[in-house]
Amino acid sequence: MPISGFPEWLPAQRIIEQRVIDRIRSTFELYGFAPLETRSVEPLETLLSKGETSKEVYLLHRLQAEADAKDDDQLGLHFDLTVPFARFVVENAGKLQFPFRRYQIQKVWRGERPQEGRYREFLQADIDVVNRDSLPFHYDTEMPLVIGDALGGLPIPRARILVNNRKVCEGFYRGLGLTDTDQVLRTVDKLDKIGPEKVAALLVETAGATDAQAAACLELAAISAEDGSFVDAVRKLGVSDPLLDEGLDELVRVVETAREHAPGLVAADLKIARGLDYYTGTVYETQLRGYERFGSVCSGGRYDNLASSGKERFPGVGISIGVSRMLGVLFGKQALTVSRSVPTCVLVALPHEDQRAACDRIAGALRRRGIPTEVAPAAAKFGKQIQYADRRGIPYVWFPGEPDTVKDIRSGEQVDADVTAWQPPDADLHPSVSGEPQ
Amino acid sequence: MPISGFPEWLPAQRIIEQRVIDRIRSTFELYGFAPLETRSVEPLETLLSKGETSKEVYLLHRLQAEADAKDDDQLGLHFDLTVPFARFVVENAGKLQFPFRRYQIQKVWRGERPQEGRYREFLQADIDVVNRDSLPFHYDTEMPLVIGDALGGLPIPRARILVNNRKVCEGFYRGLGLTDTDQVLRTVDKLDKIGPEKVAALLVETAGATDAQAAACLELAAISAEDGSFVDAVRKLGVSDPLLDEGLDELVRVVETAREHAPGLVAADLKIARGLDYYTGTVYETQLRGYERFGSVCSGGRYDNLASSGKERFPGVGISIGVSRMLGVLFGKQALTVSRSVPTCVLVALPHEDQRAACDRIAGALRRRGIPTEVAPAAAKFGKQIQYADRRGIPYVWFPGEPDTVKDIRSGEQVDADVTAWQPPDADLHPSVSGEPQ
Repeated sequence: MPISGFPEWLPAQRIIEQRVIDRIRSTFELYGFAPLETRSVEPLETLLSKGETSKEVYLLHRLQAEADAKDDDQLGLHFDLTVPFARFVVENAGKLQFPFRRYQIQKVWRGERPQEGRYREFLQADIDVVNRDSLPFHYDTEMPLVIGDALGGLPIPRARILVNNRKVCEGFYRGLGLTDTDQVLRTVDKLDKIGPEKVAALLVETAGATDAQAAACLELAAISAEDGSFVDAVRKLGVSDPLLDEGLDELVRVVETAREHAPGLVAADLKIARGLDYYTGTVYETQLRGYERFGSVCSGGRYDNLASSGKERFPGVGISIGVSRMLGVLFGKQALTVSRSVPTCVLVALPHEDQRAACDRIAGALRRRGIPTEVAPAAAKFGKQIQYADRRGIPYVWFPGEPDTVKDIRSGEQVDADVTAWQPPDADLHPSVSGEPQ
Repeated sequence: MPISGFPEWLPAQRIIEQRVIDRIRSTFELYGFAPLETRSVEPLETLLSKGETSKEVYLLHRLQAEADAKDDDQLGLHFDLTVPFARFVVENAGKLQFPFRRYQIQKVWRGERPQEGRYREFLQADIDVVNRDSLPFHYDTEMPLVIGDALGGLPIPRARILVNNRKVCEGFYRGLGLTDTDQVLRTVDKLDKIGPEKVAALLVETAGATDAQAAACLELAAISAEDGSFVDAVRKLGVSDPLLDEGLDELVRVVETAREHAPGLVAADLKIARGLDYYTGTVYETQLRGYERFGSVCSGGRYDNLASSGKERFPGVGISIGVSRMLGVLFGKQALTVSRSVPTCVLVALPHEDQRAACDRIAGALRRRGIPTEVAPAAAKFGKQIQYADRRGIPYVWFPGEPDTVKDIRSGEQVDADVTAWQPPDADLHPSVSGEPQ
């Protein structure tokens, strides 16, 4: 039976997912990110020491340990790829070259109650750059460009990356005279869920804000722009603070760099906060156009204090594509389709079971030339063998003979063919993935 | 800290692992196997109902559930990919086309105490074919050919696939007059670990064998051959049984088909048993030449009764490459190396920080032509920027200028270059993986 929160795709959907992963991975590699995988488990204390997700962790128990007096040290499945990466960097710092650019495409698990579009097991695709001591800011400007490039090559709705900077918010709140800036941030983060009136009331109730301070926080959160004009809008609110200035400078650099290299991709949106509390500067969220209500499909930010060991500190910036979440939404809307449910391009028909070895040789010759090929399962009537191909979307059936012939079963066209020379059109060689007409 | 049994590769090793996975996957697809992933968890009862691995299961508990009165239904991490696949087939039979050929490359987990070469978390790459009601035997002959093709394209020692058939063993034991054939099989399976004397003693002690019967079982287990000659060797032992005949016919077909299509790849070896008890016919194990003592890196077999639902039955045959196990052994012997630890082919040098946008445009132009490119992290002295490339094995450094130039930092050769035309040699475009000289 299906288990709630643990999605499984059918083969056609898995072909689409792999195509998406391939595009993401090849883009990450074009930008020089090195591949990494970390183990699926971390000690519970590593998981609990970061962020607000402690309640979502799955712990492991060995079945045979149930009867034992003493269990292993408590291990839990990782809930993201950033915390394990930070642990890996500290643990292997002597073997890595810094700045260290890595990507990581792996499953993560969260024990929370499943809701629409929320999974307990899902695939994430992360890039991060970390450095010893300090990390140049230009890496914060690079992250959205890589994501725009990766997602831009896919047949999915266009991505819009919304960027903010914690320093802008914290500096602004401090400049307003609010002291519990974390509480303000957490409250403003609920804007989309509970609306401005309730946020204002909560700010007064839980963060010690006056009505005027709460209103100013909401005015800040309402600001967004695709260029540096948001700075003037913030200035007009009349708040000043050195951290606010620093944050605004950084945020302008992200927005303006994106405007130069990828117009229309990035917007400053000052209500973006990100729940996890390890971010210290830039934060990113990403919407697919037309799918805004499904929330962010790609998020991340700058974390200056996540990875540290004694005197060493490894600040980083990263961003994570929620692959399962994104595909779940698009599959739910039938917004991605594939031309066939198998990799096979050619089915070799089997005239008689005693010709299987000869048919296997034909298949071998086609495979050596990179053409995915199967031999028919049994020497049934040719009509039934063609049906085998048709039901899977296999476009060509090869008939051994003198000479061999190959039939495009979509058009019915059948031509003489030589295993050493025949080549399908490029578009037919592999399954092709299409999006809905935008 | 490292956690015993949960291996983590450094980026250079991960590049090798990905290259291995890419080769395996592309081979599986050339043979028309469709991709599939199943969730990582199964209900405990599904895991416990198959095979002898119940003691090795990791159960999941939600951290927040500790305080609750009632936990979720018990879920465990899968210990192989065959049991989840069988469950998936039964559950989705109405949506799949049969015979169903799928591959699956995923992590699996076993809670056992780690030993050398045994992991608690490891990657497997499986192919299986299942059908409704009955599955033609020729699929049993196909499995070793696919594996030979997949592994044969890698710079690793040559694979040797050892094949046996449960029907040969069971029929022989029965023909000898032994009734507890499962117990005989389990005992003979310990041959490599405890040696023939102890196996003979155990057969007498636990399986009701006479000394002569025990000796005959050992004689059978000693038979191996790269062609059909093993049949005569078995016949000389003077045992006859219809199941033995059926098994010998099947085993001959596997060995002779491999002899025709891939000479030297496959041998019949009548001591191969496989511990898991769901196999019903053909069984496979695989050794790498020179690494025989490390055991099997690729195993599987025919299972006629694993997947069933009421009146429906889905017999299958499959084989699984132990990717982590194989790489762990080869990494341990420094038998696989890679030319660099990053995907990057070109580092664009940065003459001054205010030229970053121009350098990003150069990098963008090279990436659009498929050349993995990074821009230097900072406008340090060129010597330091070249060192950045050298430490990672990046072969080329690009210097913006009029005209631009590109330097092969291995040879020192520097030439004029145009971002729209310059192309590295194919061998330099991606990291290249090498094996030890065989």
